[in-house]
Amino acid sequence: MPPFYKRLHRKKDGRELFLYGLMPLEGPPLPEDAEPFRPAPHLRYHPLRGEWVVYAAHRQGRTFLPPKEHCPLCPSREGGFPTEIPFPSFQVAVFENRFPSFVEEAPPPPEGLPVAAGKALGRCEVVVYTPAHTGSLATLTEEERLLLAWAWRDRYEALYALPGVRFVMPFENGGEAVGVTLHHPHGQIYAYPFVPPVLERESQAFRERPVLLELFPNLGPYVVDEEEGFLAFVPPFARYPFEVWVAPVERHPGPWTFSEGEMAAFARLLGRVVARYDALFGEPFPYVMVFHAAPLGEEATFHFHVEFYPPRRTRDKLKFLAGTELGAGTFVVDALPEETAKALRAALP
Amino acid sequence: MPPFYKRLHRKKDGRELFLYGLMPLEGPPLPEDAEPFRPAPHLRYHPLRGEWVVYAAHRQGRTFLPPKEHCPLCPSREGGFPTEIPFPSFQVAVFENRFPSFVEEAPPPPEGLPVAAGKALGRCEVVVYTPAHTGSLATLTEEERLLLAWAWRDRYEALYALPGVRFVMPFENGGEAVGVTLHHPHGQIYAYPFVPPVLERESQAFRERPVLLELFPNLGPYVVDEEEGFLAFVPPFARYPFEVWVAPVERHPGPWTFSEGEMAAFARLLGRVVARYDALFGEPFPYVMVFHAAPLGEEATFHFHVEFYPPRRTRDKLKFLAGTELGAGTFVVDALPEETAKALRAALP
Repeated sequence: MPPFYKRLHRKKDGRELFLYGLMPLEGPPLPEDAEPFRPAPHLRYHPLRGEWVVYAAHRQGRTFLPPKEHCPLCPSREGGFPTEIPFPSFQVAVFENRFPSFVEEAPPPPEGLPVAAGKALGRCEVVVYTPAHTGSLATLTEEERLLLAWAWRDRYEALYALPGVRFVMPFENGGEAVGVTLHHPHGQIYAYPFVPPVLERESQAFRERPVLLELFPNLGPYVVDEEEGFLAFVPPFARYPFEVWVAPVERHPGPWTFSEGEMAAFARLLGRVVARYDALFGEPFPYVMVFHAAPLGEEATFHFHVEFYPPRRTRDKLKFLAGTELGAGTFVVDALPEETAKALRAALP
Repeated sequence: MPPFYKRLHRKKDGRELFLYGLMPLEGPPLPEDAEPFRPAPHLRYHPLRGEWVVYAAHRQGRTFLPPKEHCPLCPSREGGFPTEIPFPSFQVAVFENRFPSFVEEAPPPPEGLPVAAGKALGRCEVVVYTPAHTGSLATLTEEERLLLAWAWRDRYEALYALPGVRFVMPFENGGEAVGVTLHHPHGQIYAYPFVPPVLERESQAFRERPVLLELFPNLGPYVVDEEEGFLAFVPPFARYPFEVWVAPVERHPGPWTFSEGEMAAFARLLGRVVARYDALFGEPFPYVMVFHAAPLGEEATFHFHVEFYPPRRTRDKLKFLAGTELGAGTFVVDALPEETAKALRAALP
């Protein structure tokens, strides 16, 4: 049995909030706001790139870098500002995003569009890593990080069970350099009604050959860190300077097949990768982190892994995606993976 | 015959410089620096995404936002700082990039890599739009913009003639928000030794159906501007707020099949799109602009078009590419194309 407690609270506006804890979570909720929740995203098909684009016009108004005392991801206080989490304390909280790109009750797309369109069915969730307003995956305690890993796993199972969901992706946008709009340590989960293009291509590659299993025996100079059964490495074909992947040494389709020991090793290694990033320049290191688990139907060949994309080229310079990356899909990288791997190995003892 | 003069100057370090003019360009060159030019980019294959990644480690040292008096793209002055263009005046200048991602004499990739690797064969050029240090496609005179269009066309013909080149892409990264490192109005051209992923997908789509010819009759509310035989429009499936495409109404594989009249209309419309962007918020509007012409062998079905990707969501907010865009390849857009098209139509009388 997974070593955590879970409590469902239905928010006043109808959204679900799950509280995950190592101890049972008791006590009544505090008062909450109930602004109407009627998101209406829709999909349009890009006929040249062959991919869906999501239109979520309601997102323009979303909360943008609020001051700490109005952080919507902190616990609520008696008589204080009502946050997204109407409880005076929690450990890990997951709730339906108020500005979702996909929703379970998606309305039909506008009529008369000159391109194929569809419903943006699915679900978007926010994962609050800790009640503390500051910190990161690196500063959580080992216990907190393990609970978080179990929460991700629980969400994987719940979201893949939703009708129509084809791919589930936990991710984190960390740092203002990647456009984060809230500082409180958190990530998100998107449950997509289609297999997105990147996962389509990765699935096809894994169907043809066990790409990661073939790579691991030759990974020597690219390994950044390891834990029982898991590797952190700069892929020898990295598209970003300081790109790091974390993967189990044996193939798993997703964290849902990890043993309890593997869950703990995975959580520890993720935390240590972020600690290495932060140690590199002595300050929080911005990154986008995405989980690539098997899309629906790819469980037999897909190899779960986490990809970190940092936007930095050097301490002071950002890597911008521009003409060749955005317009052609070909990345040009200034730093060699074998050198960034060395720097990340040296960043922590 | 194309209505311009062209002069080749071989720079001291061996790189080619082409001067394009409406008048013959005479007079001797000024003294120039000759730092060694030994770029050594190479390719590695990303086995999961199925795409080439370019490693160009020498690029870390490239010139970054120099003060005006050290701008390498200005004309040189007698006794002054030697710029990339050792002439006291010019109209449009094109030279081989000192920090190239592809080169004609590419060395072999490092040995012993754990992934497939290859030579970064090809060529990268810088296109200087004007001798004036400030300005943009919008502020060039009509004559200057037309000369620039002919220079692009001439480079298309020269670069597609190079052995091994499969795709040629003029592009422009405009504005610090997209990482531009030099303010002087300029663009670049990459000649790739493979068909990059985005062009692979577009080519396949065009092989299956004439996507743009089918779209144009239903484009009413998405049209932003037009010129004899050309449309500027927000694609109804835009991936960026304020994305604009410019395309000939009849199918052309690239500008090399335009008539002289079409060259002029194309140049005028490009300039007016940028003028609309700049008028939108009353200040220079950052964008990435890419030219999508037919890759080698796709001339029979590919429909040439220009894509502008602006990084802005609103006047004050940038659109960041993050988890879902970078990690899944699915774009989430806050603004509806029909609304941004309306705003861009209204931006200029």
